This record gives sequence, structure tokens and C-alpha cells, in this order.
Amino acid sequence: MIERIAILGTGLLGTSVGLALRAAGFKGSITGWNRGAEGGQTALLLGAIDTLATDPIEAARAAQITVLATPIFSILDFMEKLSGVLGPEQMLTDVGSTKGQITAAGQKLYNQSGRAAFLPGHPMAGKERGGAELGDASLFRGAVWLFTDDARAERSATAKMLVSDWRAWVMAMGAHTLDLDAARHDELVAWVSHLPQFLSTALSALLEDEVGTAPELKQVGGRALREMTRLGSSPFSMWRDIAYTNTEAVAHSLLMLEQRLAHLRENLRTPELRAEFEQAHRFRKE
Amino acid sequence: MIERIAILGTGLLGTSVGLALRAAGFKGSITGWNRGAEGGQTALLLGAIDTLATDPIEAARAAQITVLATPIFSILDFMEKLSGVLGPEQMLTDVGSTKGQITAAGQKLYNQSGRAAFLPGHPMAGKERGGAELGDASLFRGAVWLFTDDARAERSATAKMLVSDWRAWVMAMGAHTLDLDAARHDELVAWVSHLPQFLSTALSALLEDEVGTAPELKQVGGRALREMTRLGSSPFSMWRDIAYTNTEAVAHSLLMLEQRLAHLRENLRTPELRAEFEQAHRFRKE
Repeated sequence: MIERIAILGTGLLGTSVGLALRAAGFKGSITGWNRGAEGGQTALLLGAIDTLATDPIEAARAAQITVLATPIFSILDFMEKLSGVLGPEQMLTDVGSTKGQITAAGQKLYNQSGRAAFLPGHPMAGKERGGAELGDASLFRGAVWLFTDDARAERSATAKMLVSDWRAWVMAMGAHTLDLDAARHDELVAWVSHLPQFLSTALSALLEDEVGTAPELKQVGGRALREMTRLGSSPFSMWRDIAYTNTEAVAHSLLMLEQRLAHLRENLRTPELRAEFEQAHRFRKE
Repeated sequence: MIERIAILGTGLLGTSVGLALRAAGFKGSITGWNRGAEGGQTALLLGAIDTLATDPIEAARAAQITVLATPIFSILDFMEKLSGVLGPEQMLTDVGSTKGQITAAGQKLYNQSGRAAFLPGHPMAGKERGGAELGDASLFRGAVWLFTDDARAERSATAKMLVSDWRAWVMAMGAHTLDLDAARHDELVAWVSHLPQFLSTALSALLEDEVGTAPELKQVGGRALREMTRLGSSPFSMWRDIAYTNTEAVAHSLLMLEQRLAHLRENLRTPELRAEFEQAHRFRKE
């Protein structure tokens, strides 16, 4: 049974994990660490963690399960640093949005005889703004929590139990779990998560240039505009790492969309426009 | 005081106008007409109209104010047909999404000595699906209702009063009114309404091609994906007319977005990506 969890990074996701664990009935200790002091204090105040650690390495050393909830490059950095610290009776997991590099690092640094277990994870949940103050015990309710575990992972009996227990807690937080190959994960999320994000950023930036100063703008834009630009508020720090670690798939999806928009633009007055609407309807029906 | 209103086209907007008028306390008669029998019957059943007319021309002839709530080309068609039927003591208005051609037709066929008044209108409200059954008395609450009236309009004292009364009813329905030049209207809505729509259609159609059959898709896509593709359900019949009557402005906005996406794609690993996120943040702050 898990008694000690550490959460490194108490931003929106880390704080929500702590709150969701408590809401699901987790009775053990939750130690938190955050790079910025304010986020850590907020997580503590909200009850997402019960101790705020000053040293993330020591916090992980003392925990059975450590959850890495920082941006991707910081996750990779912690994986490197913790590989010599954690032992075979411990488990490390993460909530990073791309899984290719992280899963590969996990297989290289963990999941081997005498080493800690690493379970690569990715909850498909978030908000357009980050921060501990937005932490939400129900953030993962109804969401999918993806895992891209490597079939070659070697784990101790204790580590196997920790992995299995963590999966059970993820479900207790209200999420559905789904197991995917890491490469397939990165390709799929490029389409359904990264493309919508970069698109919303490009649209918002373009609109700021074109009509940002129009006095009528605020009044005229309705729900559709709000929805299509909501992700324009997303933090760069998180998306920089995603752009960097899933560049090829994201660039491909953007190029395909550029071509699709050009096709639609060239057919604004032809029957082909109907075909595009019908194809869009099919997507929405599924 | 207005006692007789006719609504031609009892789809989502027409039905909502009827329901909103009633909710705002309109006590006069509301006659409706719809091309399809079912939509008319539904509007009648919901109480959006109290009489269902079989002849739209006769319904307009008997009304003080006629609201055209059909797709744009049908609005233009009715404007033509009704110009010889309505007199200087009557008023015609519409809820069409582009205003260049409609306002020009209004100035040519109406708003002259001995003719009925025409007030071009456009409520910035709707849903991604149409139909009388989705009619909603609160659809216009908090929305902007744009008018693109022509300063050269000549109207009888009665017609002036009808125009002024209609504006008051629009506000009583919960909308804010805003007056714009017709050309400026079409340019602005191309950015804040038409571009988001065609973009959502292109994105939905592309995703259907690329991942429409992926078994994991339904589970993995979250709120962001739902929001960015919601407009993918929008009816072609309405948007065909918009694409046709605002082609130049829509094509320009699409081309600009294509270029913006290409710029972002080429900068996924450069500091320029930060600049795009910051520009997007500025749009969202306003």
C-alpha cells in the first residue's frame, strides 16, 4: 500500500493530482516541491500537499512514488538526477505531454534490474492557464490518462505493485486509463491536442495584429471566437517544450492544415465547399 | 406601437426572435412562415409564433414589421419580391450574417419616398446546429445585434417610429445594439466570425481524414478539441451564402492565417515561438 507520495512541480497539474488523491481517499503523506515559492505555498494552503520540501531530490528519495509534474525538459532533467537516487523499491512517474523522449529516457535510466520503476503518463486534462491556484480535485474526472509503458521494463515485485497501485489511484481520481505506444501517442496528440493549441495561438496572434485595436471587437466577438482563441492564453513555458520534443509531428499537422485552409479558400464558391462541410460533420458525429 | 410582426424563416434565429419577443413582453400577433413544414409547426408549438402562414408574401403584407430570418440568398430574394408589396407605413428587417449586398439592396429597393423602410440587422448569436427545435428565448441575451443602416435612408414618420420601436425590442430581448458601416461590418465579421468558422470546418475535415478512424480518438480528445471543432457541425446551407457574399474578406483572412501557421511551423524551435505566444496573450487580455 502506498503511504508516501512526492509531487515535484505543484503547478496546475501537480496541485490537481494532490487534491484529486485526497478527494479519492488517499490517506498517506504527500510531499510537494515547486521551483517558485508561491506555487508551493498555494498547494500547501489548498491541502494538495501536506509538506513543502525545499530539496526535490530528498523529497523523492523519501517517497515510494514520485510524480514529476514540471515542464518536459525539467522532467527529463529530474529523471537524469533521480536515476542514481531512487532504488528498485521505488517508482517514478510523470505527467508530461509528449512521450517519445521521456519513455526512451525511462527505459535507459530506469526499469532495469536494481533500478527504480518508471511509468510514463499523460493525463489529457488541463486549463488554458496554469498555476497552483487553479488546482482542481475534479480536473481528471472523465479525462483520459494515457500511459506509454515499455514492454521491456524489468521491475521488482514491489515496483510492480506500486505501478499497479498508481494506476488504481489514477482511476480513483476519475480518469480512464489508456495504454499506447509512445510513438503513436506523440503522433496522435499532435493531431488532437498540439495542432489545436498552435492553431489557437496563431489565430489569436493574427487577430491581435488585425483587429486587436478595433473598438467594436470586444462587443462583436461571441462564443465561437472565445472558444477558438481560449487556448491562446496557454503558457509558453509548457508549449515550448512540447514544440521542441514533438517537432516533426506538429510541423506535419500544421502543414496539412495550411494546405486544407488553402483548399477551402480556393473553393469558397464551388461545390467542393459542401464536401468540406460534410467531411467536418462526419468528424463531429463520431 | 407595433401590433403585427411577421417572421419569415422559423429556423433557430427566427424561432428565437419570436420566443425572445414574447419573453420581453410583446403582446401583438406574430405570424410565422417557414419553407419546411416541420420547422413552422415546431415554432408554432413552442409559442414563438401564433399563426403559421402558408404564403410568406401575404404574411408580410399584413404585418407592420417583417423579419427575414432565412439564409442570405433567400433574404435577397424576399427583399426583391416584397419591394412591390410593402408600403411606406411598413418596415422590413433581416438577421443575415453578411451585410454588404443586403444593405445595398435595401437602399435600392426600400428606404425611398413611397416605399417601405429596410433596416439591415445581424444578431451575433447562434448555435452550431440550426432548427426551430433549438429556438431559445435567451439566445440574444448579452449578444451584440449589429445594424448597418444607410444614412441616406428616407422614411415616413410611421416607418421611423417602427425602426425605433424595433431597436427597442431588440434591446428588450437582451441584446446590445451597435451601428456599423456595412463594408466595415463584413470586414470585421470575416475576422471574428467567418474565419473561426471556416477554420473549424477545415480542422474538423482534416482530423476526420487523418484520425477519424483511430479507435483511441474519442477517448483522447478533450475539451480543447471539442471547442476547436464545435463549429464543424455548422450547417452548410447557411455558410455557403456567407462564403459567397463575403468571399474577398474571408479569402484574405484565410490566406493570412495560412501564412501565420507557416511562420509558426518554421519557428517551432526558435525564440520567435515565444513572440507568437505573447502576441496571442495580448489578444486574450483585451
